[in-house]
Amino acid sequence: MEGVSFPPLSRFAVCCGTHGNEMTGVYMYRHLQKQKVENITVTTILSNPRAVDACKRYIDIDLNRCFTNALLCTAITDSSPYELRRAQEIDAEVGPKGSDEAVDLLCDLHNTTSNMGLCVMYNSSDCVAMHIFKHLKSKITSVPVRAICSDEPISEGYALDSVGKHGLSLEVGPQPNGVVRADNFNVITEAFNHIIEWLQQFNSGATFEGGVEDVYKMTEKVDYPRDLNTNEITAAVHPQLQDNDFKLLRTGDPIFLSFDGETLRHKGRELYPFFVNECAYYEKKVAFILGEKVTVAFPSISVTKN
Amino acid sequence: MEGVSFPPLSRFAVCCGTHGNEMTGVYMYRHLQKQKVENITVTTILSNPRAVDACKRYIDIDLNRCFTNALLCTAITDSSPYELRRAQEIDAEVGPKGSDEAVDLLCDLHNTTSNMGLCVMYNSSDCVAMHIFKHLKSKITSVPVRAICSDEPISEGYALDSVGKHGLSLEVGPQPNGVVRADNFNVITEAFNHIIEWLQQFNSGATFEGGVEDVYKMTEKVDYPRDLNTNEITAAVHPQLQDNDFKLLRTGDPIFLSFDGETLRHKGRELYPFFVNECAYYEKKVAFILGEKVTVAFPSISVTKN
Repeated sequence: MEGVSFPPLSRFAVCCGTHGNEMTGVYMYRHLQKQKVENITVTTILSNPRAVDACKRYIDIDLNRCFTNALLCTAITDSSPYELRRAQEIDAEVGPKGSDEAVDLLCDLHNTTSNMGLCVMYNSSDCVAMHIFKHLKSKITSVPVRAICSDEPISEGYALDSVGKHGLSLEVGPQPNGVVRADNFNVITEAFNHIIEWLQQFNSGATFEGGVEDVYKMTEKVDYPRDLNTNEITAAVHPQLQDNDFKLLRTGDPIFLSFDGETLRHKGRELYPFFVNECAYYEKKVAFILGEKVTVAFPSISVTKN
Repeated sequence: MEGVSFPPLSRFAVCCGTHGNEMTGVYMYRHLQKQKVENITVTTILSNPRAVDACKRYIDIDLNRCFTNALLCTAITDSSPYELRRAQEIDAEVGPKGSDEAVDLLCDLHNTTSNMGLCVMYNSSDCVAMHIFKHLKSKITSVPVRAICSDEPISEGYALDSVGKHGLSLEVGPQPNGVVRADNFNVITEAFNHIIEWLQQFNSGATFEGGVEDVYKMTEKVDYPRDLNTNEITAAVHPQLQDNDFKLLRTGDPIFLSFDGETLRHKGRELYPFFVNECAYYEKKVAFILGEKVTVAFPSISVTKN
């Protein structure tokens, strides 16, 4: 695979509090105000200040679904959802998405109630994000570091991290909404420092060797069992699946335990579960996500020589 | 210690969803609608239905602080908080508090984000609650079972469990708000069944022997370190204290880790921490509670013979 070169990655945006009750980002935002970084321009954004004040995921709609090209072009009126307005403000500040003016790298900070350690989420086509994942995986030892990749064209991306020229989201957990845990805060602080270090090395002319890495790709979403009449949930995630994100789920393994004590089992092929019993996904009717583990090759990268 | 006798305990109220985002109770409420119990009249209450619908702790004020005699006598107007209205409705249904008409036993179901296993919370003077704690502790083995006792006169109690002739709250965790975990649901189902079994045995004439048990009593509340200007939290609970509820805290043990990396240590005498990093206590300015472990003696009890 041939090496790829990019212009210097000197403008870095860190977005915090995109979901207002995910506290690692909220406290990182305050912490980052005090940090000094050499040779990289770091922009910190408190993405959803009204949701942070209310300690809610969002006020009107999920901000992290608002960054499609279509929504970013929608005219704002008095009745527009608050988050649509914020999406356009953020796009103006660190984008515009898809333009030369967009920041070189955008990192969006999230928490999950699932036992996922540190997850780097990015688009498969973004080899800068791939290299940053590889770097974080080699440096961070306190929690497992994994990658979840999307194959969606970046132009169709709806997440905030699609606004930068390169982008990734960091998910760390488990952590209840509304709570800050020191262990998770330390993981994100460490990740931030390693990303800065990587960007400085890249801009200084280092070549980062290509290779292969295992990443996860979503194949399906699994809803909770529900009562046919009331549509209410009739089972919780099974204790053998709870907290076992990324542990291979085999045909016949327990997945739900009904409130009446009945065990429901996985009927499909072998896949990896993640976002198991994530709080925010109840309203999205997702008990857990299933995905494949795939090995992806990526090229060497270095800064463009003048 | 002389034995004590009580009239039969045949009217049992189970209150669920007193905090609308503590999901074990919310799902127990639905589950209990389908249960049949012999010789005990079980009343199930969904305490705060509007907060349950909104998946919030409360709408206007914390319902579980509304059951003082003073608040239960306050005239309701159009501008009264929703929870004050609900408190009076619940008091009418399973009280009135302090009257002969009140249910014989009231059990209020709660979750905590802290690693507290199953905690039975009740008033020290209530020897029926003490015996139920002893029974649950002897029967439930999947999680630690502990008691937190209050010495406050029942007449001054503000919690929902003060409405019954006898009362207790069950706290189970850790569990994020808005999430139901099968392990915690099973603990509460088991506790419900053991309480019913105990009530049936008591009413059938069994004598429950007195004895001594260790329980915890709150001595102080500890707030997070805060910025003097902004009043914002400047530290998280230290990783060595996080998840270590009920592990003796000694002078000099780490209690907080500041976002700048500084460790703060416990300066007082040896005490037991609980409700460590409980989500709902951020707004109450409580990072954790400290208490003593004390051994309490309690009498034999049996049903009054006619």
